[in-house]
Amino acid sequence: MFKGRFPTFKRMGQDEENKLKQKIFDVIFEANTPYGKLFDITLLFLILMSVGLVMLESVPAVNARYHSTLVTLEWTLTSLFTLEYLLRIYCVKNRWRYIFSFYGIIDLLSILPFYLGLFFPTSKYLSSIRILRLLRIFRIFNLTRFTRGKNVLVIGLKESKDKIIVFLSFIVLIVVVIGSIMYMVEHDHPESGFTSIPISIYWAVVTLTTVGYGDISPVTGLGQFLASLVMIIGYGVIAVPTGIVTMEMNKAAKYDVPKNTERCRNCGDDYHLDGSVYCKTCGHKLNH
Amino acid sequence: MFKGRFPTFKRMGQDEENKLKQKIFDVIFEANTPYGKLFDITLLFLILMSVGLVMLESVPAVNARYHSTLVTLEWTLTSLFTLEYLLRIYCVKNRWRYIFSFYGIIDLLSILPFYLGLFFPTSKYLSSIRILRLLRIFRIFNLTRFTRGKNVLVIGLKESKDKIIVFLSFIVLIVVVIGSIMYMVEHDHPESGFTSIPISIYWAVVTLTTVGYGDISPVTGLGQFLASLVMIIGYGVIAVPTGIVTMEMNKAAKYDVPKNTERCRNCGDDYHLDGSVYCKTCGHKLNH
Amino acid sequence: MFKGRFPTFKRMGQDEENKLKQKIFDVIFEANTPYGKLFDITLLFLILMSVGLVMLESVPAVNARYHSTLVTLEWTLTSLFTLEYLLRIYCVKNRWRYIFSFYGIIDLLSILPFYLGLFFPTSKYLSSIRILRLLRIFRIFNLTRFTRGKNVLVIGLKESKDKIIVFLSFIVLIVVVIGSIMYMVEHDHPESGFTSIPISIYWAVVTLTTVGYGDISPVTGLGQFLASLVMIIGYGVIAVPTGIVTMEMNKAAKYDVPKNTERCRNCGDDYHLDGSVYCKTCGHKLNH
Amino acid sequence: MFKGRFPTFKRMGQDEENKLKQKIFDVIFEANTPYGKLFDITLLFLILMSVGLVMLESVPAVNARYHSTLVTLEWTLTSLFTLEYLLRIYCVKNRWRYIFSFYGIIDLLSILPFYLGLFFPTSKYLSSIRILRLLRIFRIFNLTRFTRGKNVLVIGLKESKDKIIVFLSFIVLIVVVIGSIMYMVEHDHPESGFTSIPISIYWAVVTLTTVGYGDISPVTGLGQFLASLVMIIGYGVIAVPTGIVTMEMNKAAKYDVPKNTERCRNCGDDYHLDGSVYCKTCGHKLNH
Repeated sequence: MFKGRFPTFKRMGQDEENKLKQKIFDVIFEANTPYGKLFDITLLFLILMSVGLVMLESVPAVNARYHSTLVTLEWTLTSLFTLEYLLRIYCVKNRWRYIFSFYGIIDLLSILPFYLGLFFPTSKYLSSIRILRLLRIFRIFNLTRFTRGKNVLVIGLKESKDKIIVFLSFIVLIVVVIGSIMYMVEHDHPESGFTSIPISIYWAVVTLTTVGYGDISPVTGLGQFLASLVMIIGYGVIAVPTGIVTMEMNKAAKYDVPKNTERCRNCGDDYHLDGSVYCKTCGHKLNH
Repeated sequence: MFKGRFPTFKRMGQDEENKLKQKIFDVIFEANTPYGKLFDITLLFLILMSVGLVMLESVPAVNARYHSTLVTLEWTLTSLFTLEYLLRIYCVKNRWRYIFSFYGIIDLLSILPFYLGLFFPTSKYLSSIRILRLLRIFRIFNLTRFTRGKNVLVIGLKESKDKIIVFLSFIVLIVVVIGSIMYMVEHDHPESGFTSIPISIYWAVVTLTTVGYGDISPVTGLGQFLASLVMIIGYGVIAVPTGIVTMEMNKAAKYDVPKNTERCRNCGDDYHLDGSVYCKTCGHKLNH
Repeated sequence: MFKGRFPTFKRMGQDEENKLKQKIFDVIFEANTPYGKLFDITLLFLILMSVGLVMLESVPAVNARYHSTLVTLEWTLTSLFTLEYLLRIYCVKNRWRYIFSFYGIIDLLSILPFYLGLFFPTSKYLSSIRILRLLRIFRIFNLTRFTRGKNVLVIGLKESKDKIIVFLSFIVLIVVVIGSIMYMVEHDHPESGFTSIPISIYWAVVTLTTVGYGDISPVTGLGQFLASLVMIIGYGVIAVPTGIVTMEMNKAAKYDVPKNTERCRNCGDDYHLDGSVYCKTCGHKLNH
Repeated sequence: MFKGRFPTFKRMGQDEENKLKQKIFDVIFEANTPYGKLFDITLLFLILMSVGLVMLESVPAVNARYHSTLVTLEWTLTSLFTLEYLLRIYCVKNRWRYIFSFYGIIDLLSILPFYLGLFFPTSKYLSSIRILRLLRIFRIFNLTRFTRGKNVLVIGLKESKDKIIVFLSFIVLIVVVIGSIMYMVEHDHPESGFTSIPISIYWAVVTLTTVGYGDISPVTGLGQFLASLVMIIGYGVIAVPTGIVTMEMNKAAKYDVPKNTERCRNCGDDYHLDGSVYCKTCGHKLNH
């Protein structure tokens, strides 16, 4: 462990160092202080900027023309992110826990490809990993408390998880069977594109989800008839996840307005509108 | 300000002019008088006609053959719209407020491109701006009171706004990450079309929303496997906005029953639950 | 009017003729008698067969090989439908009302193209009109009482009508504006296919509804960015009709189980399950 | 019947044989014993492996390179499945009922194509039937009791069945009529691909379900206008199955709460509403 042994701070007293650590921690990890907010907004801006850089670099025309500018900006941004990473390590108490936490790894992954790229300059793909910096945005979103909107969404989806997994495994089974049948039917017509079972399964997914690229499509009458069946089935099947999520959100929404379920002390009636002061049934004052 | 100084009306008395202004205002801005209704219907018809003109002009075959007819009609319609614009300015009390209001700018934008086109005849694209005239239809719809149908729609969507924004920003993050990964996977196969990260993100949007043009589609096995995952995820994800809107509409529908909008005689509060006997705000008996 | 003057029945008494008419009417128009059911099923079979014929005739390979068989079958079926049409006219009381009713016109349209085809043999398209025979199936479905399933569907859709019209007119406005903007953006790149505003509007419909043929697709960066926006908007917008229909169906479903809303005579509690004999709250016998 | 006449077990006593049969039955058919669980998991693994084999065999590149390995593995797996099939026949009481049951036929179909392939080596398609082995997974899922998630799904879909059938037959009617109309409109432009009515109906399905391959798409102005109408209709129509399933799931979810499935001690009736105090069938007090 290299706890507290950063050379530049060696001559400070233990107390002063702890205070400094606390200050840095407040700015970097907290979101409620003014400096914390400023830091989060600056970071958000820098992340979006660097993601934009990665994108522009991948466009051949742009990269050819502004290569040096892009490289300079990339150097600057990566230096800032590296400084931030080191400061994070410096100011947290349990360093290893941070380094191996989800966000710790994301933070490392967002600077590492750049330094590796210096030694292995041909590793073009490596540099695309930097786009994972985007995931750091979630940390900022997690800190700044979200509105109720998110809660209903998250609760609704969490509750739907079981049912959606059952549903998706069913879809996978269906798609494999449909793909194999279509392979048998269309295999003799190579212009249709059904060249192997995995490709046919890919087609089945493309069709059942109503994406429909058209790079593979049946050409025989029987194939087109079966494809029509698949589409009409998909039409009915697409209703299922929607039904699940709607149902769970409806449930979650009920727990979202706690006041409404309060009962009148006089007549026992419940389900009052938000902000009701008197019972809608007996006119007795509600006891919030 | 050029208030009240239109030359042709100079010799009228102040009173007469005010009466005239009121009359014009009633016809142009109001929708309940017989003349107001007639004006709105005529205007609706003229707008649709002029939008049709802009469309026809853009079709090369039609424009080549009926060019002079189209130009004549366009002259006539633009003159009428200009007259209407001037009358609107003339009859409103606060002229500048009208001119810089949303509909004031739309009104100007629907005649300006034509006059600019006279001086800069090459500005072909400018003339397409005239299609924004279509937005003027909304004013007519706003005036003629809509059925309940619209209210539920609008309330449902307004209430969903927060959740849909959270959802859409999540979609944007997902789409950027997916696009970058697919770029890394498919980049070596230029025939697949994944030539840069922005293009790959465009593909991710096209796929996740199940549009699926097919101008860009994966060709490697790994790419097709990842694309299948994306589609199946999209299948589950498409359920979310539907769930949100359905939930909010269900809520909005509860306030949709006519009784609910009754106002309490005592405190003037409205929107009571179905079957409420006492006002939820002041406890006064409701007078059904 | 040619009421009752069919020559072959001239020598029958008025009474006998009326009885005969009644008998024919019972078989052709009623569905509850054994003969009526048999007639309906036979007719359903003949309609489906004749629709199959029209389809097969349109397939060049099949028509070339089995032309004479198809023609013979068509002759037979059209004769039978003509006979049925004449009998329908004969046995109804108010003949003109039948002839100009919706189903009367459909009945005529399903035989007329054939006879016209004898005189104008080149009118190939005319013969496709015969496919409208399919609409006659709805009459049979209307007669044989449907299950509750249909009622909920029909009530749900009827109640949604207003809202769906508001929604669709909004979609039309959006699509025209989007199409015009994309025309301005992509017009200089003829390979993208945005050759005129109507075509661009067609593209906007194809994209917003997530059909996505790919015959027209943006090629410029700005165009692809705008298209992405349109798709993500469409993603949220597709939720609206679903929300409407679900809401209305939920409402319709409540009225679909009349017994459930009955109140207990003892405690006044309502909403009992189907087939409940005793009140779920006080145990008192329910009074169906 | 060849009940109990397997030669190898001939010398065992009747009792011993019955015990052996019972043991085998417990392992193969039951899922709650430790050996039963182990057997199910092994079987699941072998099925997935053999399905993977069938897929890989269909990929030309893989088959060319690893042909002998694939064949060896196929031999091994089919031998194991054959052994399992014989053991199943041996240990069940009513053999013929098993053999002609749904899973009995699936079990046979998953080994038969292999043996037939030995005698008719050219029957390449036959071997794809082996993918039906996948359906055997459902048996394992049925044994290992599922979570509530599945129940809501299954109840919701079962209840929706009637309405979805009405809806789908309506879709079929619509699609045939739309296809025929588009055939009449686009028939003179062979580059559009509307070469016959069945093909046009296929296009109508592809469009209405928003799949949109783009292999067939209208080229005339009228055709594109009609296609736009179809898409916008499809936009509204896609809401219907979602509405149905959501509604039925909402209903099913009400019965999903554990209390509701409690049985009345007096009459044994289950499925009571939440908060019921008395049995809805016999009026006996419920014993929470």
